[in-house]
Amino acid sequence: MRFTNATLPDGSRHDIEVEGGRISALLPASAATAGIDAIDLSGTMVLPPLVDGHIHLDKTLLGLPWIPNQSTGNQVSDRIEAERRVRAARTVPEFETGSNLVRQIVASGTLHMRSHVDIDNQLGLKNLHEVLKIREHFRDLVTIEIVAFPQSGILRSPGTAELLDEAIAQGADLVGGLDPVGIDGDLDAHLDTVFAIASRRGAGVDIHLHDGGEAGLAQIMAIAARTEALGLQGKVAVSHAFALGSVSTESVTRAADTLARAGVAIMSHGPGGATIPPLKLLREHGVEVFGGSDNIRDAWSPFGNGDMLERAMLIGYRANFRHDAELALAFDMVTTAAARVLGLPDHGFKVGSPADFVTVEATTLAEAVATRKRRSLVVKAGRVVARDGVLV
Amino acid sequence: MRFTNATLPDGSRHDIEVEGGRISALLPASAATAGIDAIDLSGTMVLPPLVDGHIHLDKTLLGLPWIPNQSTGNQVSDRIEAERRVRAARTVPEFETGSNLVRQIVASGTLHMRSHVDIDNQLGLKNLHEVLKIREHFRDLVTIEIVAFPQSGILRSPGTAELLDEAIAQGADLVGGLDPVGIDGDLDAHLDTVFAIASRRGAGVDIHLHDGGEAGLAQIMAIAARTEALGLQGKVAVSHAFALGSVSTESVTRAADTLARAGVAIMSHGPGGATIPPLKLLREHGVEVFGGSDNIRDAWSPFGNGDMLERAMLIGYRANFRHDAELALAFDMVTTAAARVLGLPDHGFKVGSPADFVTVEATTLAEAVATRKRRSLVVKAGRVVARDGVLV
Repeated sequence: MRFTNATLPDGSRHDIEVEGGRISALLPASAATAGIDAIDLSGTMVLPPLVDGHIHLDKTLLGLPWIPNQSTGNQVSDRIEAERRVRAARTVPEFETGSNLVRQIVASGTLHMRSHVDIDNQLGLKNLHEVLKIREHFRDLVTIEIVAFPQSGILRSPGTAELLDEAIAQGADLVGGLDPVGIDGDLDAHLDTVFAIASRRGAGVDIHLHDGGEAGLAQIMAIAARTEALGLQGKVAVSHAFALGSVSTESVTRAADTLARAGVAIMSHGPGGATIPPLKLLREHGVEVFGGSDNIRDAWSPFGNGDMLERAMLIGYRANFRHDAELALAFDMVTTAAARVLGLPDHGFKVGSPADFVTVEATTLAEAVATRKRRSLVVKAGRVVARDGVLV
Repeated sequence: MRFTNATLPDGSRHDIEVEGGRISALLPASAATAGIDAIDLSGTMVLPPLVDGHIHLDKTLLGLPWIPNQSTGNQVSDRIEAERRVRAARTVPEFETGSNLVRQIVASGTLHMRSHVDIDNQLGLKNLHEVLKIREHFRDLVTIEIVAFPQSGILRSPGTAELLDEAIAQGADLVGGLDPVGIDGDLDAHLDTVFAIASRRGAGVDIHLHDGGEAGLAQIMAIAARTEALGLQGKVAVSHAFALGSVSTESVTRAADTLARAGVAIMSHGPGGATIPPLKLLREHGVEVFGGSDNIRDAWSPFGNGDMLERAMLIGYRANFRHDAELALAFDMVTTAAARVLGLPDHGFKVGSPADFVTVEATTLAEAVATRKRRSLVVKAGRVVARDGVLV
């Protein structure tokens, strides 16, 4: 079949021929389609599938009646406590709310994601099992990478280390971590546990790091050192890394070179109330930077909707991006770069790749990011799976 | 006529009776409507009209083919130069692009706005005349307050002082200003001019203040001092005021008391790449804080769309607001507070007020801000003027 009159991000016009769920050819636009099953894209822009590099499928309350934020303070530890209360009160399984979110984000063009999943000595592996069910349920629609995430800390929540290990055994792909100093109060003990499991299980690592300033930076550098020492280059990410945006340019430049050498990627969601890492500087020094949604209508944040074009806008807005090349970087963070971090070699819009793409009304890539109109089509393996923001 | 089954922000359900373009009664929901012209709102939330406290109708390039940002640096002065180049190349009158923007923002529920209009010794009053035409053209749909804005400075652009004065004579409502130190290099001379015109003409004042730190704060304090000295309390605003977000809590607390006493309001658009004033602290100290869009797809910024519910979200996101009461403050900034600053005593949803309102799918006000769904209806004087984001 064919999708005719597509505008590619470089401005060229093509018809897209699909065979066996893959892009078999890019033809001159408006090639004859007599006798061929064809969908006319009428010049709308075709983008590769969006990739969410950091989501929490088990946390969202999407689809439930509005639940006000209950945190009594502004620290990570306050929000952890508030989430416990919300969790204790909820009666709808995480499978249901997480599925609501998956449907919403697929309709906005995201076909791949990395979800952190809370694990602690109260929850055990309950949330992991819920998200594994979601992954299985939507396996034909989206790929879901799972991070076993110690939301309550590892040392602070005895038994969590064993649970993280068991989570990997049961299907989680990466070992997570959380502010080794700010939450657990012991950098080495926290990282020892995380990296030992990753190393033994052959899993990747993705650590939440909210701690700011030089103290936060020191933790990021410790993660880089362990990554190099264990030969885990390309398999480790630090999420948020607010510290990179709150230290001197000299400090962050030195850090960038270390991160690049260690192959440690940095995830940013374009934080609203925290400092944002200097994305261009990091990229210029060879650091992989990628994007994610983070919290979406959950006990942590009332905001977010999982639309990764909107996320690219928010990242660009916070990073003070204005030029087209800057908006292209923000877009890259939620597509190509995130796909590299998630290990998706087939991602991208090219002949031979899966016929997975998203269409949106825009004349340039920068305009697509800035205006982020409702997605007219989401196509998976040549099949239309969403139209005008609604799953079909 | 009646609008039935409206959910008000307090959660109550009512039918809205409209007579002569005003709300004549709030009746119990689902009152009998036999024989009455009625529109069923089906429980959607009814909000007062949105108010944009800071827009640039003459700058937007909305409706034109995408024009990449051309600024060669990140200073205000670089962007002023870049805008001159864009302006020199444009062939479509500002009336047309500004009208595109008015149509778009009315469709998102904004019925009142304050527009700054560029005036300098190259432009003269050309842009003012374009925006006066827009104001006249849309007079039955929206109210537009106009600020005569010296975008190129006053001292740096000789002749601008006289043009500002003439602008007020020709219909502008307020005298603008721009970084007296950062752009014009002379605090007193800049403010002398602005306040002399305002005082003589009985006009208000709204000054753009990007300068940060204590140097920026000193300028804000000078504005407050002149406001008090001239008895202009309640008629003066400082837009952006990034400095209030970049000084110590002690400094900003002292400043807040001074601003409250002087009746100087603070406008924030929830800046992406600059510091945001501490909105809650200011409000707690009695300072009027209100919101605006600022740049919308123009030579300054690729972002923005004029949706003030989205703006409330962005303000809340940047201010690290998460609780329902915080989201209510962000909403207040783009409705009630902005209406006070713009001098709109009739604004608000109550019996006797004009039947101007907006409907949106949400169960609480906080949810409306966080999810900012497409507006189902925009009603002006009891008449539906937009439906599902499109003008009728």
